[in-house]
Amino acid sequence: MDRPVISFLTDFGPESAPAICRGVILSIARDAQIIDISHSVPKFAILDGAYLLWSAVPWLPVGIHIAVVDPGVGSDRLPIGIRAARGDTLVGPDNGLLMPAAAVLGGAVEARVLENRELILPQTGATFHGRDVFAPVAAHLARGRTFDEVGPPIPLESLVQLRFPSPAISEGALEATVAFVDSFGNLRLFATPADLTAALGELASGSTITVEFLGASSGTRAEAATLARTFADRPVGSLLLYTDSSGLLAISVNQGSAARRTGAETGRLVRLHSARP
Amino acid sequence: MDRPVISFLTDFGPESAPAICRGVILSIARDAQIIDISHSVPKFAILDGAYLLWSAVPWLPVGIHIAVVDPGVGSDRLPIGIRAARGDTLVGPDNGLLMPAAAVLGGAVEARVLENRELILPQTGATFHGRDVFAPVAAHLARGRTFDEVGPPIPLESLVQLRFPSPAISEGALEATVAFVDSFGNLRLFATPADLTAALGELASGSTITVEFLGASSGTRAEAATLARTFADRPVGSLLLYTDSSGLLAISVNQGSAARRTGAETGRLVRLHSARP
Amino acid sequence: MDRPVISFLTDFGPESAPAICRGVILSIARDAQIIDISHSVPKFAILDGAYLLWSAVPWLPVGIHIAVVDPGVGSDRLPIGIRAARGDTLVGPDNGLLMPAAAVLGGAVEARVLENRELILPQTGATFHGRDVFAPVAAHLARGRTFDEVGPPIPLESLVQLRFPSPAISEGALEATVAFVDSFGNLRLFATPADLTAALGELASGSTITVEFLGASSGTRAEAATLARTFADRPVGSLLLYTDSSGLLAISVNQGSAARRTGAETGRLVRLHSARP
Repeated sequence: MDRPVISFLTDFGPESAPAICRGVILSIARDAQIIDISHSVPKFAILDGAYLLWSAVPWLPVGIHIAVVDPGVGSDRLPIGIRAARGDTLVGPDNGLLMPAAAVLGGAVEARVLENRELILPQTGATFHGRDVFAPVAAHLARGRTFDEVGPPIPLESLVQLRFPSPAISEGALEATVAFVDSFGNLRLFATPADLTAALGELASGSTITVEFLGASSGTRAEAATLARTFADRPVGSLLLYTDSSGLLAISVNQGSAARRTGAETGRLVRLHSARP
Repeated sequence: MDRPVISFLTDFGPESAPAICRGVILSIARDAQIIDISHSVPKFAILDGAYLLWSAVPWLPVGIHIAVVDPGVGSDRLPIGIRAARGDTLVGPDNGLLMPAAAVLGGAVEARVLENRELILPQTGATFHGRDVFAPVAAHLARGRTFDEVGPPIPLESLVQLRFPSPAISEGALEATVAFVDSFGNLRLFATPADLTAALGELASGSTITVEFLGASSGTRAEAATLARTFADRPVGSLLLYTDSSGLLAISVNQGSAARRTGAETGRLVRLHSARP
Repeated sequence: MDRPVISFLTDFGPESAPAICRGVILSIARDAQIIDISHSVPKFAILDGAYLLWSAVPWLPVGIHIAVVDPGVGSDRLPIGIRAARGDTLVGPDNGLLMPAAAVLGGAVEARVLENRELILPQTGATFHGRDVFAPVAAHLARGRTFDEVGPPIPLESLVQLRFPSPAISEGALEATVAFVDSFGNLRLFATPADLTAALGELASGSTITVEFLGASSGTRAEAATLARTFADRPVGSLLLYTDSSGLLAISVNQGSAARRTGAETGRLVRLHSARP
């Protein structure tokens, strides 16, 4: 039988905390195959964590996915598990972190509160539920415990919701939020090529788009970007608008950093239109 | 039979050195399950490495633990293995790095010098004993070679000792050393809640404690912290004193960085008392 | 049978991209043993990536090695596989990245263009061939597909070449290029102890060598370094010249950073001679 897959995303950083959780997992489910998604989520950044989890899970085998970005650890926020239509189980805090991933895995079909003390560590502390709750529950699920054993059901509509911000489409302009800035400095946008077409009509590759970065303390700033299929379609240093590997629009500088060039960061509003800057 | 577990901690950083060691391990023991604890230990920081190893090993399955923070590589410092009471084997340099981990695993029961040339790489260099000595010895142990095959015994009392600094308990004050600053900026202290009670008496959650940071070049600095069970018990930005997931006292800022706020770093002496600052 | 080994090196950074590729690999070859070499290669730095891959592969079990530092992704640069004499297969972009690794694995014996659409993902995008091409081809090879199934052969001599810069040996001086600066700040040079002997004659350990850093904007700078076997042979803070774990000459500061001390970076030319500075 295949080894069960457990993926793992946190904001724990480069110290021993992820290894401690891996140790707990392997103490319970020795043959688990752990896929670390990232432990470099910016601290407490639930939206960044939700975006990264959402970006990764469609490409992972069906399995258990642990995600912990959890400023409310030890408070009355619930520890939850969510079953998704594809067959995966997500475990983590009820703060919205898991919701976009559940949606992209076909939608949430059932949620439960992680309350079964047989599946969590006996001396649960107040500051490290990754180790004490989420890792052991995930490991027990990987070993074959069923989802209804983790704890009582909770209505899906009572979970803390988190939806990626929708773009605003008007005739001649598309306004979208920067979803994430990756380590290349690419600005991923919460908008799709279809949104761009709805706003600006069909555009050929090579078209010039004006990109306005709204709401900066230094005032709105506009730059011309070229619609391109990939980075190397444009000269080194050029600003370009492309469709990224998740199917989102994104802004890049070929062999450079769009983030450094524009000063934009996650959550910034961006306005795309065809007029000259 | 279960796959053998080998954990691995170094100050090697983000390049290829840890992968080279993993390659050596898997060339000898192909079914080993490697758990990377951290490769981001500050360079040459034996105490930081010892702390991180100590923090992790209790949560790992019984296995072989490789630790390499080794400013004396290639000198006459000995390469050693230590058997701990729980059944684990620690391998690394004889510079104190392994000692707190051995203690928390039930205590060292036997130590040996890694001298058996059959178990180390034929062309041992002078600068990379992680690859040439520690990884292959660990892998051979994982494959079933016995501990007495690694080399001659060495008396436990002749090993380089490293003990975490004890707190100073007086009536009305507790002085403790900052053990580690994690990537959240939490200051972990070498002191326990029992030490605090011994110094200040029983304190209810919500009590105010004065924290003095001693020995800073800018003079001693005092701040009020609140005794709390977890971060979210206090408003965002509050300084709090809590019991961390290893059972140590720690200083935190809810959704912030106590390290940035106070300027404290590993090794700094901290004085806790009840008087108003 | 042994689990197949797939190693993996990229400049993708700390986000979800490596995990997405691991997910694709494990979806095809569930029992693959993935060894992450590094995902911290400086962005677009083909030479740094080639150096790190070259440094690691000799120590890994025979397997499939994926390397992606790929500024030309989506352009007409070819996706290739190379079979090396040792029995390994390298997959990645045809930009020179794989060539030194192929050489150190006994030399390239056959190359093919990765064109078989059965072995790559159905909806191949233009910006993430790690996910869409290299990971799935590697996983199919790990599962037993043969090398001639990946696509048509391409003559080895038509591949983009990348050779590490050779040192210049003259009587009394050796000029070499800084190959890589590791996270300790050690400067690895593209030159061997034999090159040094050819230029300066036999030198005893403890000899003084003058190191000139050429071509700095601030003018050439010279420092005295001592020939040593390992760091600890010299006092803390001393500059030393030693033979590193890959058999290259390297410049180090015992328990310090030669990079910080000298300001040298990858690609800098260094001149070693015996005269006093």
